[in-house]
Amino acid sequence: MSDTAPKPVKYPTIHLQAGRQRRVLQGHPWVYSNEVQMDTAAKAVPPGSPVRLVDAGGTPIGIATFNPHTLIAARLLTRDPATVIDHGFLAGRLRRAVDLRDRLFPGTPYYRVVHAEADGLPGLIVDRFGEVVTVQANSVFMDQRIDAILAALDEVLAPKAVILRNDSTQRALEGLPEETRLAKGELDGPIRLEENGVTFFANPLDGQKTGWFYDQRDNRAFIASLAKGGRAIDFFSYNGGFGIQCAVAGATSVVSVDRSALALENAARAAEANGVADRFEARRADAFHEMERLAAAGEQFDVVIADPPAFVKSKKDLAVGCRAYRKMAKLSARITAPGGFLLCGSCSHNVDPPTFAEQVARGLSDAGRTGRILRSAGAGPDHPVHPNLPESAYLKAIVMQLD
Amino acid sequence: MSDTAPKPVKYPTIHLQAGRQRRVLQGHPWVYSNEVQMDTAAKAVPPGSPVRLVDAGGTPIGIATFNPHTLIAARLLTRDPATVIDHGFLAGRLRRAVDLRDRLFPGTPYYRVVHAEADGLPGLIVDRFGEVVTVQANSVFMDQRIDAILAALDEVLAPKAVILRNDSTQRALEGLPEETRLAKGELDGPIRLEENGVTFFANPLDGQKTGWFYDQRDNRAFIASLAKGGRAIDFFSYNGGFGIQCAVAGATSVVSVDRSALALENAARAAEANGVADRFEARRADAFHEMERLAAAGEQFDVVIADPPAFVKSKKDLAVGCRAYRKMAKLSARITAPGGFLLCGSCSHNVDPPTFAEQVARGLSDAGRTGRILRSAGAGPDHPVHPNLPESAYLKAIVMQLD
Repeated sequence: MSDTAPKPVKYPTIHLQAGRQRRVLQGHPWVYSNEVQMDTAAKAVPPGSPVRLVDAGGTPIGIATFNPHTLIAARLLTRDPATVIDHGFLAGRLRRAVDLRDRLFPGTPYYRVVHAEADGLPGLIVDRFGEVVTVQANSVFMDQRIDAILAALDEVLAPKAVILRNDSTQRALEGLPEETRLAKGELDGPIRLEENGVTFFANPLDGQKTGWFYDQRDNRAFIASLAKGGRAIDFFSYNGGFGIQCAVAGATSVVSVDRSALALENAARAAEANGVADRFEARRADAFHEMERLAAAGEQFDVVIADPPAFVKSKKDLAVGCRAYRKMAKLSARITAPGGFLLCGSCSHNVDPPTFAEQVARGLSDAGRTGRILRSAGAGPDHPVHPNLPESAYLKAIVMQLD
Repeated sequence: MSDTAPKPVKYPTIHLQAGRQRRVLQGHPWVYSNEVQMDTAAKAVPPGSPVRLVDAGGTPIGIATFNPHTLIAARLLTRDPATVIDHGFLAGRLRRAVDLRDRLFPGTPYYRVVHAEADGLPGLIVDRFGEVVTVQANSVFMDQRIDAILAALDEVLAPKAVILRNDSTQRALEGLPEETRLAKGELDGPIRLEENGVTFFANPLDGQKTGWFYDQRDNRAFIASLAKGGRAIDFFSYNGGFGIQCAVAGATSVVSVDRSALALENAARAAEANGVADRFEARRADAFHEMERLAAAGEQFDVVIADPPAFVKSKKDLAVGCRAYRKMAKLSARITAPGGFLLCGSCSHNVDPPTFAEQVARGLSDAGRTGRILRSAGAGPDHPVHPNLPESAYLKAIVMQLD
């Protein structure tokens, strides 16, 4: 022990209930409010506090963040009960996350830096766009520590600008307000990023979404590798991710379809920056309407991408959302040329991979088409998954060749 | 219609039962024996015959292969009831499959050529090793047409040698004998192949397995990309696929562990051919014993690969097999260094992805380790999946970083 070792910190102790601790002891990082001994002392713990989590017999399990008012009452930070949760802890976790990404994407600082539980920082999302970083604090614990997080970011990444994208639905569950603001530095217009060697632009401060979805990186690379010499169309294109990568990979023409003029501006700017503007068209339209129009006109494409925003935002929307995915698969299959490739994506947490695959298979059948699945994949490795939270793997992409 | 169009062929007609045809009408390629009207005429259809499949009302569904003595009585070849199932049909399907692979792997003729139902050739498996091809006929239909298949292969691929690897358990279900023999050309020693730019050797004529498992191609590339500068160990290494790719990617040392002397010879030959023999060790041992020995000795590696043969060969072995996967995950986690990477694989058809992921998570917990899943993936795109047979996606690989 060194003389400079921090003094032990006394965190409030939270006991699990005897019959309800097995899952946590087996490695799960969450404790539901009905699994802890929610006595007067526990109820009085201020939301966002670190707590010492112990089993019913008093044996320490680890240190967790605690909020007595939420369904997920405790989220484990560490299984080492001697850990002090301070700036050094946050900076250490952040450094570990950055080291992993730098190993995954050497020399290209464009990735998700922190993916919540899987990176040992429950409730925190950080994306990196070179010297610009976006931060989302989805728990009271993280929200209260935003200054420490910013300090840790300065220490580990030294970004020129930091944007707080605190506009998630998860924040509402924690009783936190929405806000999107610049927490450090200055921004002038869209930011620049790279993915798979292709340049893109995004507006994390203004856009209606988080700016960029790195999660589809590998799926974009895969479909782009099949696009050479073909006509491609990218529905729900947002800033142009799939389509522009197809163009750079050699597609003879690419149409990006989105309802957002700002997103299409970014896509067009990316086409220009990558020297494919002559093969690129930004088309402002509703994706379903455009699919139906093209099908009615008998138009077909060699590569069709349909990667929509979440259709199923809560469990009660499951049936309606599934029908929408099935319809999307049907319409997009109709406009896929024989021998062509179709990617159907879903980022709905509430639709599991087999359910999504079933909707896609049915849509294919509805369209009277057959084919083969070449790839079924989730998010890339900068969106890791906690081993005990497999359901947090929300992204699904199915790539097929149609006959 | 051209004058040279083939005359319509009259295939026996098989009727589906009224209440049991929905699944097939929705796109499923299999008909179970209790779903057809198994009358005297149907029972008299010679096994392996093409049949005209019609619904209960007599409307044509397509052409299928038929075997009245097997549980899966009919396998759809095409939904076009006018199709003639001849040499031209087989050659056309084969050409379509090859065209896809040549698009996936331009200029590198090392891949699975035909993956059964997903390639529209139910019961047929073809692997390509440059000018050598292996063929597995897993149905009476394909077995009876082996000469037509060889002729189609000559037409499309013109291989110098063709090996029949007719030693699958599926053949037994169809009442077919086992045999492994050279059907064309000559072979002298192991054959050479490439995967991800790395050279390997295999013995499809002598080996106890099919020679090479291309299905792990992308998973091998991923783990190799993380191996630079680290010590790697590859359990159940077979011909050295994972380990040698780690060495070529810059691992400082690699150990391949297998019980087969022949497999380790191929691995050592690959190490030599790729110029990494000085960093390679072939270790003949039982994987579980070796893991336990290394754990007891406190040895750890930066990259650990555990990709065993199927532990669960039939549903009745599920519980025992799951325990074996859990134990494998525990032991391999113990010898993974902090910050290191662990790949756990399973090719058991009977273990679905969530069940396998659960065993891996439990094994990790048993070892007292935490970490994050960077990749959960199946087989590569030359092993496509029929959209209505998701359960045929047998391969599972989970890559984690451990703390």
